[in-house]
This record gives sequence, C-alpha cells and structure tokens, in this order.
Amino acid sequence: MTVTIVGLGLIGCSMAIDLKKTGFAKQIIGVDTNKQDQKTALKNNYIDSAMNLSLAIKDSDIIILAVPVDVIGEILPSILDLSKGKVVTDVGSVKYSIEKSINNHKNRRNFVSGHPIAGTENSGVNAAESNLFNNKVVILCDKQKSLKEALEKIEKMYRFLNMNILYMNSKEHDIHCAYVSHISHLSSFALALSVLDKEKDEENILNLAGGGFESTVRLAKSNAQMWNPIFINNKENIIEVLDNYINKLNDFKKAIKSGKRKELNELILQANKISKIV
Amino acid sequence: MTVTIVGLGLIGCSMAIDLKKTGFAKQIIGVDTNKQDQKTALKNNYIDSAMNLSLAIKDSDIIILAVPVDVIGEILPSILDLSKGKVVTDVGSVKYSIEKSINNHKNRRNFVSGHPIAGTENSGVNAAESNLFNNKVVILCDKQKSLKEALEKIEKMYRFLNMNILYMNSKEHDIHCAYVSHISHLSSFALALSVLDKEKDEENILNLAGGGFESTVRLAKSNAQMWNPIFINNKENIIEVLDNYINKLNDFKKAIKSGKRKELNELILQANKISKIV
Repeated sequence: MTVTIVGLGLIGCSMAIDLKKTGFAKQIIGVDTNKQDQKTALKNNYIDSAMNLSLAIKDSDIIILAVPVDVIGEILPSILDLSKGKVVTDVGSVKYSIEKSINNHKNRRNFVSGHPIAGTENSGVNAAESNLFNNKVVILCDKQKSLKEALEKIEKMYRFLNMNILYMNSKEHDIHCAYVSHISHLSSFALALSVLDKEKDEENILNLAGGGFESTVRLAKSNAQMWNPIFINNKENIIEVLDNYINKLNDFKKAIKSGKRKELNELILQANKISKIV
Repeated sequence: MTVTIVGLGLIGCSMAIDLKKTGFAKQIIGVDTNKQDQKTALKNNYIDSAMNLSLAIKDSDIIILAVPVDVIGEILPSILDLSKGKVVTDVGSVKYSIEKSINNHKNRRNFVSGHPIAGTENSGVNAAESNLFNNKVVILCDKQKSLKEALEKIEKMYRFLNMNILYMNSKEHDIHCAYVSHISHLSSFALALSVLDKEKDEENILNLAGGGFESTVRLAKSNAQMWNPIFINNKENIIEVLDNYINKLNDFKKAIKSGKRKELNELILQANKISKIV
C-alpha cells in the first residue's frame, strides 16, 4: 500500500511513522508546501519520498489530508477530481464544513471523513512521535456517503494504529467537539491572556503557578494556524458553548460577589460530578 | 520537636508523613473534629496521637492549621491566646483575611503566615501522599510581623520538606494567587458545568475528550469545602480576574462570530506567549 500524506506536521508525520512501522504502508509519500518540513521529514525517514500533489496522488492508494481544516475544504474538491480508484481521507477537527465542500462532488464516495482524536499542544514536523494514536479514538463521519471498500480501507488503517473507531454524522461530531475540545482550548487561551495581562512579573507567575495553573493553561500553547480555522469553521457551535460557558462563569461571579456560600457550594458540587467522566 | 496538625486532610496528613519521615518532628499530634479521619490517620501512622485542640497545643512546639481558610480565621485568635512559647502557622491559600483576623492580637508574633503551593485535585486523609511538597514553593507572608525565632522554625520546617521559600506580603500573595490558581479552578468548574449541561450522553464525552479536555477540567473535581471559602475570602481579587477573563472570552467570541481571522490569530499568538512561562 502506498500512502500519501498531505501536510507534514505533528499529525501527518506521527501517522507516517506508525503506518510504516506497523507495515500498513509500504511506501509513504510526503507533500508539503514548506520545503524545509519536507526535508526534515525525509531526513528523519518519516517519509520515503516527497513530490508535488498531483504526482503523489497518481502513485498512491490512499491520500491523507493532514492540513488545517480550512485548507482541507479548499483542496479536497480538486483532489477528488483525481481520485478514481483511490481513497481520500482527512484528519480535520471540524467535519461539517468539509462535508459541505464536497457533498455534491461526483467522487464523494471515494472520500472517508475522519478525525483521529490525538495530539499534543506542540505542533510541526519536529513534534512528531510514534504511538501518538495508540488506544485513542477516531471518529469516522457520514460513513454511508463513502464507498464500502473505501471505508473498509480506512477502518483497517486505523486498526493498524490501534485506534478505537466511532461513527457519527458530521453535524453531531462538530457539536460534541465544540463542547469537549474546542471550548477547552478557548478557555485556556483566554486564561493565558488574562494572566499575561496582569502579571508583568513573570518570575512570580512561574513561582506561584503550581500544578493547577499549568494543566489548565497548557493548551494555550496550541498552534494558531490549526486552531484559527477550527474556531471559524465550527463557529455556530462554538458561539453556543462560549455563551453557555460565560453564563456559568457569571453564575460563579454572582455567588462570590454576594457571598452566597450555599449557592457557590451547589455550583462546585455540581461541577464535581465531572469526576464520573474524567 | 512535637508538631500538632489541625485538620487531617490531604495537606495536613501529607505534611505529617514527611515531617516525621525527615526527622523534623519526633511526635505528631492530630486534631480533627471528624473522628473517622482521626482514626484513619492513626491507623496509617500519619499521626502518633489524636487529642482535642487545647491539650494538643499544650503538648506542642509547633501548631499547623490545615483546615479551610474560613475556619483558620475563626479558630486562629483563640489558638494564639494559648500560644505562649509556641509557634503557630497555617497553610491557607488566602492570606489577607487571615492576617486581618489576628493583626491586633497580642500574640501575633507567635504566628507565621504560610502557603505551601502543593496539592492535587483529590482531598481528604485518604489522598495523603509522601513527597507532595518536595521541590515546590512555599510562600511566607508578612514575615516582619513574626518573631524571628518563630519564622526561623517554620523556615527550617519547610526546608526539611525540601520546599523553596518565597516571601511576600499577604495582599500581594492574594492577588497573585487569584491570577494563577484561583481563576484556574473557576475556569475548570465552569467548564465542567457547561459540558455536563449539554452532554447528557456521557459516553460520548468520555470518548471524545482526548487529552485536552481532561487536563483543563481536572481541577473541577476539587473540594467544595476548601474552595468555597477561598473564593469568598479572596472575593475582590477574584471578581477582578473573573471580569478580565470573561472579557478575554468575549474578545474571542467577537472575533469568531464576525469571522475576523486576523484578530483571532493575534489573540491566539498573544496567548501562545504563555509558553515562555509554563
């Protein structure tokens, strides 16, 4: 099996490493507009060769799009134009906007919409690591819109990465991800801004931080190129969850400001119920 | 040295374990209104004996208050009444309200105001662990208000726990902690509430969560009995940081809603600067 990976960042290169290691791919072709990243990926043996997109498609069985979600929406239609006999899949964190971009494409059925839920706050080819996907979840969306054989190939690929496969429609996916992933990042970005705003004396932040601050603010290091289009492309769901989140913060503010210990206690006890889940 | 620990929870018992282990304390006396916790602490050999507060004070060189901050403010004056020849210290996360409660006490100088910055999202005697304080920071506040010998004893104690000692006044401490610790907890509690509100299908939360959600929401498991009085006793600083935080979230909301990619990018890049610090 020859696999082309478009986008040689954290996700693309981490997939390359393990698709090769597990034997799923015999050959990995890397495609990236950044020539330096291509060089690094070649030098580290993450990919076997680097070429331009149309040549890579011609030589591949599977094409994986691991670029920011807005770029996926832009390039996917023209990739599907060339996809006869191939399987195209993506790893984007927002699914409905991508689905809309190719919903009426004559080769829609060569496409499998995917979202492996894995990553770190780091990004780029140098952040790639083996086992990033091991035992994590991948969501495949709108599976009835894919050819049976195409879907099976992608399922097989994720089983080689030892991922647990879930199925959802893309709208449902985007709502869930807004609530459990996208808002976590917004919450963390905003926290970083508040703290940076106030504390010019960085040594004191560092000294006082303790474990709590670090884990809450860790996601604020996440990459703008990736997250900007996620927020924009999942706008409606994200505005909804942001409004809800700000309301909850205001509930806390009201209880604290008026010194209503009982109400404050109820809010905290209610929040504690999250321990059933994480 | 005989040390009394008032409050046999995570912090109190974890201190007991290592004060004994390091040889700083020959004897540890435990005081708690919860008889079950006393029993557990005795059974686990965290403490050597359990007795009521006034007897314990009489037998001790150092009395450590490891109860919620509102309780510290309530019991500290009467403990200082009995503190002749003893050193009293506390581990509360808010310092100015405690300082006010004993500022004019005739034995103020027997008291050393402290805040070891360590802990987990777990609480109670069963969460106690050795090495919790190792290589962490402890803040000692308003040190000029303590007797030199009292201060030195507490400094020595924290050096036995291998903590790095910083000095601050209590007002400054409360501002810093609002920004780097208290807001992290509020942000996490509110996030838990938002997600619990929306997602009745818990399996899907669990499946989709990934690393990001877990680390952001971890603090939402924190104990209400401890955090309620922290929020109330540090009200002014917390309202200030909450307002600032909500403003930042609204900045994100505005940029996302209007699709202003450039503004959104600037917000994220600005937030990324936190990586200099954590």
